[in-house]
Formats: sequence, C-alpha cells, structure tokens
Amino acid sequence: MAKIMAVNAGSSSLKFQLLEMPAEEVIAQGLIERIGMDDAIITIKYQNDGSVVASDDITLSDDGKKAKFKVVAPVKDHQVAINVMLKHLSELGIIENLDEIVGVGHRVVSGGEWFNSSVIVDEEVLHKIERLAAYAPLHNPANAMGIRAFQKILPHAVSVAVFDTSFHQTMPKVNYLYSLPYQYYTRYGARKYGAHGTSHRYVAHRAAEMLDRDINDLKLITLHLGAGASATAVQNGKSYDTSMGFTPMAGLTMATRVGDVDASLINYIQEHEHLSNEEMMDVLNKKSGLLGISTISSDMRDLEAVRDTNEHANLAIDIFVNRVVRYVGQYIAEMNGADAIIFTAGIGENGYEVRKEIIDKLSYFGVEIDDAKNTGMRDEAIVSTDDSKIKVLVVPTNEELMIARDVQTLMGEK
Amino acid sequence: MAKIMAVNAGSSSLKFQLLEMPAEEVIAQGLIERIGMDDAIITIKYQNDGSVVASDDITLSDDGKKAKFKVVAPVKDHQVAINVMLKHLSELGIIENLDEIVGVGHRVVSGGEWFNSSVIVDEEVLHKIERLAAYAPLHNPANAMGIRAFQKILPHAVSVAVFDTSFHQTMPKVNYLYSLPYQYYTRYGARKYGAHGTSHRYVAHRAAEMLDRDINDLKLITLHLGAGASATAVQNGKSYDTSMGFTPMAGLTMATRVGDVDASLINYIQEHEHLSNEEMMDVLNKKSGLLGISTISSDMRDLEAVRDTNEHANLAIDIFVNRVVRYVGQYIAEMNGADAIIFTAGIGENGYEVRKEIIDKLSYFGVEIDDAKNTGMRDEAIVSTDDSKIKVLVVPTNEELMIARDVQTLMGEK
Repeated sequence: MAKIMAVNAGSSSLKFQLLEMPAEEVIAQGLIERIGMDDAIITIKYQNDGSVVASDDITLSDDGKKAKFKVVAPVKDHQVAINVMLKHLSELGIIENLDEIVGVGHRVVSGGEWFNSSVIVDEEVLHKIERLAAYAPLHNPANAMGIRAFQKILPHAVSVAVFDTSFHQTMPKVNYLYSLPYQYYTRYGARKYGAHGTSHRYVAHRAAEMLDRDINDLKLITLHLGAGASATAVQNGKSYDTSMGFTPMAGLTMATRVGDVDASLINYIQEHEHLSNEEMMDVLNKKSGLLGISTISSDMRDLEAVRDTNEHANLAIDIFVNRVVRYVGQYIAEMNGADAIIFTAGIGENGYEVRKEIIDKLSYFGVEIDDAKNTGMRDEAIVSTDDSKIKVLVVPTNEELMIARDVQTLMGEK
Repeated sequence: MAKIMAVNAGSSSLKFQLLEMPAEEVIAQGLIERIGMDDAIITIKYQNDGSVVASDDITLSDDGKKAKFKVVAPVKDHQVAINVMLKHLSELGIIENLDEIVGVGHRVVSGGEWFNSSVIVDEEVLHKIERLAAYAPLHNPANAMGIRAFQKILPHAVSVAVFDTSFHQTMPKVNYLYSLPYQYYTRYGARKYGAHGTSHRYVAHRAAEMLDRDINDLKLITLHLGAGASATAVQNGKSYDTSMGFTPMAGLTMATRVGDVDASLINYIQEHEHLSNEEMMDVLNKKSGLLGISTISSDMRDLEAVRDTNEHANLAIDIFVNRVVRYVGQYIAEMNGADAIIFTAGIGENGYEVRKEIIDKLSYFGVEIDDAKNTGMRDEAIVSTDDSKIKVLVVPTNEELMIARDVQTLMGEK
C-alpha cells in the first residue's frame, strides 16, 4: 500500500494529511503554523495503536485512541517546515522511511483557464501556477513554494496539483462571463472562476452515491458553507454555475467576506472613508460578511448563541440564510430543476438550525426537512423527508481525500 | 377637469406629458433636448382634432389623427425651456391659459430613505432632494432644477415629487442590506435602493387588474427590460426585493450597464487599464452590458438581427436572458412562490423572442408561454397558456400616468 500526502500550503502555514491508499485511511494529519518565526507551532494528530505514551509533547484523547503531538520550534521557511514535519513523523513511528510517501497532492487555489483537472507537476506547470498569482496573489505563490519545497525533499514522490478552480471550468460561457467589455476577458481573463471546486466535486459525487443515482442524471446544488462559503449548480456531474467569481470574495455572505455587492458602492465608500484600494479590499475580505453585519463575531456559533437578544447577530444570520436561498432559487432556475441540495463545511455540516431555516424557506419547491433526521444526524445523512421532492443531504467535505484520489489516479495513468 | 403635467427633467433635457385628469387622457407629450445650446430641439406630439394644418413646423401622421410639432431654437436653461414649451402649447391650442395646469409631478431618481411615497414639494423637500444628489449625482440636481423652474413659472400649480426609489422602501432589511460593515449603512446609507419604482408599481397594479385579483394576495415578478433593466419581487403589492442596488448599475445585464459583477475584479481591471475611478465607472455604466459583450451594439434589436451569424451578439442575448432567469429564480425562492411574471419597457414589451426564451427556460416552475398570444399581442396581454401555473403578462409601462395619479391623489389630500 502507498502513502499519499495531501498538502495545503499557505504563506506562513502548511496543513497536511497523510493517507494510506487505496484504503483511504487517514494515518496522520497536522499543521505547521507561524512558518518564518522562531516560535512556530508543529501539531500532528494520529491514531494510537496502543504503543503511544503521553509525554510533554504528546497528549492522548480520553479514550486513549488518539494522540496529539505538539511542539514549538524555530521554522525558518517552508523547506524547514517540511523537514521538521517529516522528522517528527518518523520519530513518532508514523512512517518508517521517506520512500513510503509515493505521492504528494497540493491544493492550488487558482488554475485559471489553464487547468480543468488535476495534473502532475512539472516545471512548466509550476511556472503556470506562479504566473496565475495575478488571480490569487495571497495563495498561488505559497502553493508553488510548498510544491517546490516538497519536490526538493521528496524527489521520488509524484507531485500533483489539485486546483480549487478546475471543477468549475465546465461552466458555460453564458454563466462565467460578466457583462463587461469583452476585451477584458481576452486581455486579462476577467471572468468567473469560482473556488472550493474540490469540495463541491467531492460532495456532489458522494451525494450521488448516497442517493444510489448516476451523477450524470442529476441536478445538484452543493452548498459549501464554512468561513468561506459558496454554492454550486452541478449538472450531470459538472459544475454549471457557482457563486464565487473572479475572486472568492463574491457570492454568498461569508464569515468576513462581503459576497455580492453593487460594485459602484465601493468607490463611494472608499472616498468617504479615505481608504486606499488595498485597504478597501481588506475591509471587503476581512471585515465584512457575518462580522461586518453583526459587529460582534464572524463565527456563526457565536451569533446563534446571542441571536435572541442581539438584533445585529440575528440580522447577520437572516442575511446569510437569505443569500443561500437566493442562490438556490437561481440555480433551480438555471438548471431548470434540482434533485438534491447538499450541505457541507463547518456551518453546512454542523449548523442544523441554519439548514432548517434555509430549507423551510424553499418549501414552494416541494423540499421538506425531516426535523429529527436533521437535528440528530452525525457524519453524513439524507435529512429530507421521504416525500421531499428535492432531497437534502449533509456530506462532510473531504478535500484531502479527493486530492489523494487524484494523486492516485494520475500515478496510475503515468 | 384638471390638466396635470408629468415631468422628467435631465441635465440637458426635459420630457413631459400633459394629461387630462381624472380621465387619464394624454393631451400632449414632448421633449426639449440640448438645453443650454443655441440649437435646442423642441418636439410636441398631440392629437389632431381636425383643425391642425401641416406646416414647416408641423407634420401629420398618415391617418391625420396625430400632429407633431418640431422647432429648433436657442434654449439657455430649464426655465427658458419650460417657458418655450408652455408658449408653444398655448399657440398650438393645447392649453388656453396656464392656470389650467393645476399640478406638476416630477420624476425624481433618488428619494433615499427619506421618501417612501410621492410628496408635495415644499422648500424642505426640495432641500432633501438636493442633498440626495450624493446617491444620484447625474439625476437629482437636474430633477431639482426642473422643480424649481416649474415652481417659478407655474406658482399656482401643486408641485409633486415622485421618486424612482420610494416603491422599494418596503423591502425588508434582510433584502436591502449588503454584507458590509454595518457602520457604512448608518454613516453613508450604504444599502440597496433600487430604481424604476414607478414603473414596477404601475405594471404590478395593472397586472392585478388584468388578472382580476387583489394585489394584496399576489406574488409578482415584474421585469422592466429597457435600456435600463431591473427585476422586482412584488409581494402583496409591495416591493420585496429588486435587482438594482445602491445605484442603478447593479443587477441585470443592461444596454450599456454591467449589472452584477465581482467587485474585486474592478480594481484589477482598473490597474491593468490605467483607468481612474471616474473612467472605470464610465466603462461600467456606458460601455458594458449588451454593448460590452457584443462589441457591436447596445440595442437588442440590432443584436437579434445578426444573432445567427455573429457569435458575440448571440452571447450578449444569451447572457441577458440568463441574468433575467437567475433573478426570476431568486425571487420565486425569496417569495416562496410566484403568481405572475410581468414584462414591461422596450425589450419587455416588444421583444417577444426574448420573452419566449426567458419563459421557456423556466418550464420547471410550470410556467408556459402561448406562442400565438406572445407573438401576436399588441398593447397589454396575458401571454401564458391557460394551464400555466405562473401567468405571464405584458404590460406597457406608464410612469407618466402613475405620476399624474399621484399628483391627483395628493391634491385631493391637501
């Protein structure tokens, strides 16, 4: 059996999951935070086969089945981060030697119009990922840095790039093009790219399995509702439309991102608040959304806790729900129907009250939530009533698994 | 019987309609263009009772029933424009003396949050209209100028302001608020205001009459599709949501306006094209929409004429239709149902092919167009099949009549 690592590299962090494939079993997962600092934090969670003993660095779960390793250490850059991480994986007995890791799949935020599926990374691919930094200035350079660092340390492992945007490359032009002067599209690639593609792809396929239906015969609306949030219309297994746009700022109300807004309002606010373009973008990305409306928190759980007594918290939740309802309506219209609505990510998986509110508002379409199933479900479930014309599902997303599967598929094709 | 004038004053133009009320009969209508120039154009169209003789300035329609007066003359400002217009109305025998005009209703683009209905204009109202210029810099100052000029020339006539936005003041906060930091709303009134309110109000009420239903029991989607285009969800006679936003740039694809677009794309384009904020806004308002996509024309008729051979023209129409479909779906979801879809304005009234395309795409909702009725209709009509679950109507808009009615109502209350 082969071990495949799914990696999500940020500018100062690196998240990973190590999977045994094709068993699809998670062996370990972890995070290196504060890369570049003298007090970076390395965390690794793994299964305790019975041999792990608690120590200064290792804590065990109450039932003793899970172990958590955590140390603080200087980590100069991504290469050091990876070396440190692999060293600890060895010392913890999670891997015996580095050759066991036969493939590394990297999440890459933007694939522009160049990548409509995951690819094995060569120098040309890497250059393209770097050039696409124009579309994802915060993410693509970090993603590329992570790829280069892994290639250096694990030269034998197959390196695969899995793009957030590639699933949405099937959108028809009528859906992805803005009503701007056409030359902005040809000159600058000004169009809708979407994001969260790996998540939407995963839950759409999983939903088809759970419904025991061929995904090629289904019209699905996948709702990835986390700190970032997006809705996708998935027709015949392909992304038909999605709520995020040129950037992941557009669409739904998010934790701190504004979602849809009249573009001509932005200049107006900027002038009155004396904000530079950069400062304004910062507000729209980091101080808007649930946080902006509620003024108290970007976390849906905080808002729900005070909803009854805090008007702003209540309004923020109502607006969040409303924007999802708008997109569901839009996608039912665009696909001219829908077979299922699928919830995933933090709020989508755990926010049963929000799920109920959304579905209750859509009763005209013959969709009905089963309160007991909706409240009582764990993991994945169909939470609509048996009579519901449109099925409602909750599917915990698993982008890492999707990445590992793509690595495996591409290794097989190699 | 009283004569009431409905006025739409622009920065260099003045459109008017003179109605006999309460008969609601149009006596004359006209336009003064190029105000401020030595070669302003004054046009007045009126009924020929048989006494009108063609001349250098007057042409008659083929059946002789309609007369059109047209002269070119220097017109220094709005006050001169009104004086010239009234002089010609007298000379043409359309009015005998100025006292016949008992009321003047003015279209005002922005009423902000201050005006949720039409009002009799006093000095305070006028000041407010001028202060609201922040929201409609091109329109409100001109509207106010028109009001002041009429008050000077017709001091006896009741002066009424009818706001494009006031119909939408019934929108709930969840629908009109953006997911921006809340203080932008309290400080700058950053929210959705909508526009075309007088048109949406008129066609919604007329549709209820045509359906022989109480408007208070109806869920309607009104589509004002002209050079400017907007969709409104009208629930129980009240605007519940609308597609235009803080400004009339948002929402549907329009002749030259961009409609919905990822706000963070704007900066990106601006930087690459080296455009100032003002130049960028100009592009989004005047060079986008149907014109921007097609690259050939902002006029739907031009695009339809070459659609089969011109890919860009075809794409522009497809996108226009798609955006309407999106909003219809959104509003069916938000209102949790719909009883009728109403088309109005240039494209809405005359573009039977576009109407059919839109409705065909919505077949999932049980709405069906009657091809014969849709193609053969003149004036106003129900164009859906008898079995259609959602009715489809075409209602020529009549903002001037709505304005005259509001003037009459307010005069009665005075």
